[in-house]
Amino acid sequence: MSTSEIDQLIKLLSKLPGLGSRSARRATLYLIKHRESLLMPLGSAMAAAAEHVKTCTTCGNLDTVDPCSICSNGARDQKTLCVVEDVSDLWALERAGAFSGLYHVLGGNLSALDGVGPEDLSVEPLLQRTAGTLVTEVIIALNATVDGQTTAHYLTDRLSDHNILVSHLAHGVPVGGELDYLDDGTLATALKSRRPLD
Amino acid sequence: MSTSEIDQLIKLLSKLPGLGSRSARRATLYLIKHRESLLMPLGSAMAAAAEHVKTCTTCGNLDTVDPCSICSNGARDQKTLCVVEDVSDLWALERAGAFSGLYHVLGGNLSALDGVGPEDLSVEPLLQRTAGTLVTEVIIALNATVDGQTTAHYLTDRLSDHNILVSHLAHGVPVGGELDYLDDGTLATALKSRRPLD
Repeated sequence: MSTSEIDQLIKLLSKLPGLGSRSARRATLYLIKHRESLLMPLGSAMAAAAEHVKTCTTCGNLDTVDPCSICSNGARDQKTLCVVEDVSDLWALERAGAFSGLYHVLGGNLSALDGVGPEDLSVEPLLQRTAGTLVTEVIIALNATVDGQTTAHYLTDRLSDHNILVSHLAHGVPVGGELDYLDDGTLATALKSRRPLD
Repeated sequence: MSTSEIDQLIKLLSKLPGLGSRSARRATLYLIKHRESLLMPLGSAMAAAAEHVKTCTTCGNLDTVDPCSICSNGARDQKTLCVVEDVSDLWALERAGAFSGLYHVLGGNLSALDGVGPEDLSVEPLLQRTAGTLVTEVIIALNATVDGQTTAHYLTDRLSDHNILVSHLAHGVPVGGELDYLDDGTLATALKSRRPLD
């Protein structure tokens, strides 16, 4: 029978998203078999992350410094703010490497069903950041779900009295996507938003 | 951009079986958001496991004590030895709760393709354990794969000069299984090994 240390490891690993009890057992065995190369470094990495990683009080990103390395990077475009739902979306945009402005992590979407109102999200800090004269454009990069779009409209409305350009990510055919597999809504939007070849 | 501590955590987590880079990022974010309840306990659990878990020198099980709690449990049947490929198989049999004897972890299967010979497995220790007069039955519980069955035949052969009953797990219809979904080999074996209703 497995002992308390092993059981504890399995129990905690099975709480991770995407891991059930079976895969947690498999991961635990793998970890114990790779003690020097994986188990010990991972334990230290977790302790280090728990100690050093904090939320940036300006944008909501996760980093070891506050303000985070994006907010404090003078080389980035200080005039453009990109609003995302979660840190994972910020990471996705950074991986794409197509945006050089600053971010604002909202922390969720408005949701009447889940009882999430504007006061639960980082809306006021966003309005404060855009109240100055520095920011000239806010790009709303929320998920193309009902809640995401509701939140996008709410933010557009709240930002309308600031003298700021509010823009959205374009909808359309994903790069590499096949028309045959696309849903009707996306196809219709892509057709409506068609652009001259350049 | 994510920092070195976060990157390090993602990199290490993505080495776990069943986790790719995307799910490792998801797990990392989840861990950081559940710092007190998951990240810190998991880090400590890994450090504790790295420090305390060892391989039982008698049977090959993983435990914090050596000999392991199964080997040192006098209430278990000392006359029956169950040979398994890996610790995960031992855990599976313990979860089933149908076996009260001792185990022997072989550490793999013979495989000509992968160059695994008898000297790479815990075969000699098994023969030594069965050489005394205490053990009367060896149950070979290896996977029903080609390599597993090759290894089972090899072990049966090596154990034949000891005065020991060597048995195998039964093949047949899994409990709860539907005939329509079973492969021909299993069905044929189940038919051949049919037993009177009791």
